[in-house]
Amino acid sequence: MEPVKVGILGLGTVGAGAVNLLAKNGEEITRRAGRAIEFTRAAVRDTSKTRECATDAIDIGTDCQSIVTDPNIDVVIELIGGDTEAFDLVMAAIANGKHVVTANKHLIALRGNEIFAAADEAGVVVSFEAAVAGGIPIIKAMRESLAANHIEWIAGIINGTGNFILSQMNFENVSFADALADAQARGFAEADPTFDVEGIDAAHKLAILSSIAFGIPLSFDKIFTQGIRDIDSDDIEYCAELGYRIKHLGIARRQDIGVEMRVHPTLVSEKALLANVEGEKNAIMVYGDAVGPTVYYGAGAGAGPTASAVVADLIDTVRMMSVDPKGRVPHLAFQPDELTDEPILGKEDFECGHYFRVQVADQIGVLAEITRALADQQIGIEAILQKDPPTEEDDARVMIVTKPARERNLNKVLDHIRALPYTREGIVHMRVAQFED
Amino acid sequence: MEPVKVGILGLGTVGAGAVNLLAKNGEEITRRAGRAIEFTRAAVRDTSKTRECATDAIDIGTDCQSIVTDPNIDVVIELIGGDTEAFDLVMAAIANGKHVVTANKHLIALRGNEIFAAADEAGVVVSFEAAVAGGIPIIKAMRESLAANHIEWIAGIINGTGNFILSQMNFENVSFADALADAQARGFAEADPTFDVEGIDAAHKLAILSSIAFGIPLSFDKIFTQGIRDIDSDDIEYCAELGYRIKHLGIARRQDIGVEMRVHPTLVSEKALLANVEGEKNAIMVYGDAVGPTVYYGAGAGAGPTASAVVADLIDTVRMMSVDPKGRVPHLAFQPDELTDEPILGKEDFECGHYFRVQVADQIGVLAEITRALADQQIGIEAILQKDPPTEEDDARVMIVTKPARERNLNKVLDHIRALPYTREGIVHMRVAQFED
Repeated sequence: MEPVKVGILGLGTVGAGAVNLLAKNGEEITRRAGRAIEFTRAAVRDTSKTRECATDAIDIGTDCQSIVTDPNIDVVIELIGGDTEAFDLVMAAIANGKHVVTANKHLIALRGNEIFAAADEAGVVVSFEAAVAGGIPIIKAMRESLAANHIEWIAGIINGTGNFILSQMNFENVSFADALADAQARGFAEADPTFDVEGIDAAHKLAILSSIAFGIPLSFDKIFTQGIRDIDSDDIEYCAELGYRIKHLGIARRQDIGVEMRVHPTLVSEKALLANVEGEKNAIMVYGDAVGPTVYYGAGAGAGPTASAVVADLIDTVRMMSVDPKGRVPHLAFQPDELTDEPILGKEDFECGHYFRVQVADQIGVLAEITRALADQQIGIEAILQKDPPTEEDDARVMIVTKPARERNLNKVLDHIRALPYTREGIVHMRVAQFED
Repeated sequence: MEPVKVGILGLGTVGAGAVNLLAKNGEEITRRAGRAIEFTRAAVRDTSKTRECATDAIDIGTDCQSIVTDPNIDVVIELIGGDTEAFDLVMAAIANGKHVVTANKHLIALRGNEIFAAADEAGVVVSFEAAVAGGIPIIKAMRESLAANHIEWIAGIINGTGNFILSQMNFENVSFADALADAQARGFAEADPTFDVEGIDAAHKLAILSSIAFGIPLSFDKIFTQGIRDIDSDDIEYCAELGYRIKHLGIARRQDIGVEMRVHPTLVSEKALLANVEGEKNAIMVYGDAVGPTVYYGAGAGAGPTASAVVADLIDTVRMMSVDPKGRVPHLAFQPDELTDEPILGKEDFECGHYFRVQVADQIGVLAEITRALADQQIGIEAILQKDPPTEEDDARVMIVTKPARERNLNKVLDHIRALPYTREGIVHMRVAQFED
């Protein structure tokens, strides 16, 4: 059979990684796939730039449009990023009957509903394994391997930059600012780290995972998103004493009344597997009603891991080309007309354990008042710790981990505590993961 | 479209689990798969036995043969076990143009080469995700998601019974015999635990994983297999002091001169993810040249997890039915004519770190002699520990962890030590995992 001909939009780190991977393992890949794959064209911004891959066999130009309309191209790989130009090009590729492979989480999270509708209409496949957790095959695992399960929740470390920073804060005992600078120096964080440290990148990925898990349309704008910028080294220390590690998790969870989707710093029991995922690594835990908890771990970014996912998608696409579109794996795991718009819950309805730190004047009866406030809201206490603050001598700091409680009720407790005469300003509140391995 | 009609051979724990799963999640599964799946017939040994699932809609008899030849049956699920009757039935199903789903690792490891050849010839699919690590989608991950990688090694906890026993020995400080009795009482171990504790079950699974990783025919009989029966609580304690946990791993690894395939007790750094997989859980680490290390974790056995894999295979099979056989995922990851017979190495050629414990008369110069013997073979020392033995007062026990070395060279050292006048009988030797997360 003719080799499958692929055009690449963007030839940066990931694009060069894919070209290098096919050059190195092409023979072995053909032994698996049964058909050769060739990168024949690429479009870049600046053709004079030196590339990190051999480009002799690739026709390199600057015109993306001519690739997505080229009748000799079977599959387009989109590696431009963002949701504007990339969107137009992907839609044009689809309109021209091309299959698409993309690593662009931003694009899929925000415009995926439109893209998949167009692809289904045109009978082509848009693959995006590389968009979530790099080389970890989480999309395929959830979409195919767990297809017999009613998925109850997912919880993942899905931003390597954030996890690297938290690992540094934990092990090197440095501040957020120093850890971020370190991450930037090592190339793990962008010069503008907003998407990573504010949780936006993780929310993009969580939107994709949630749709596939629950059969809902992509709903990025309904995700509660909180970054890691405000995490205080003191809390890392207190949590460690209480038996927890602070991780930045994306969590999606079914309740009877709707679906929780949230990205935030989370206390994870130090015994849990996710607590021990360090550095820039990613890991996702998925709980299916039949299979129970499963975990998928690996590199969430980088040229090699991302290229591994992109080329795996290419191999799948080659296989899918000969398949009746009705027999293909649906883009969002469920048949397009079977997606249901379940209610997405606001944060008042979140249900989980809570950690809070409150600083108070060290007086008789303070702890009695705080624990009474919790009891009044029917909230149980999992662990409690009292410490002297670093400076104010006459104050005390109280850290409490609660049993699972609805956030609305916890907020009533915090409001009550805030209004007490001996409470200092600035209660710290974080959520606790309630999964078990 | 017509529902896909499935016949089940064997309606024990896993079969009933699959029936229950489809009853519970059937609607959601159809929303994903786009086509309904029905269990219409089952064959059992004793029709009078009470089943752990609703059987109203299933025609239950005792005649397996009539199911594998039934023109109304599209897919046969084989859950009988063993490699004799099951083999004949699977081959008959294939000859009658049925697709097959099986959870039978024993069958695939020993007779898979014949079965897949027959299936390829007949244009049908034989699926076996449930045969390795229960609900963990390791077959699909390696066969499809990592298809762009040159896989360098795999290392896995792939026998839940053995891992449960080792966890108990470690945390409860009990002997092997007591931990085994506990596992049997809890239903994690069979009345005859030979396959689990001798490593045979793990070797079945490793044979399957190795073929898929390296593109070699199934070679169960060439696997070096050592069980957990002889693990001494003393070594668990010494290894812990040295920073290691003892796990029973299946390891397959490429060397330039051939492939290592081995199942044995293994020292794993306590910081590694695999060291922290406890109880009856399974986890497999796969190292691909592009993706780096990835880990897959979950329940390796039980009705729900195994049924999760069986029904996922059913959904895949339904999709594959309409696909040109040449476009399907090959049974062993590589196209059938692309499997290559690489040399399988004997244990003398294994290359890894080693742990040994030797008891000696406590004399001047003993340690100098032992370490000199290692140096003479160019073997580096990673860690060393000396302890008094529990009883013999004038003896000393020396435990050494070496850096990676070929086993042939290590054996020369052990022979040398064994021949020394002050060495007591019974040197303990275990291998050390040399992977990193």
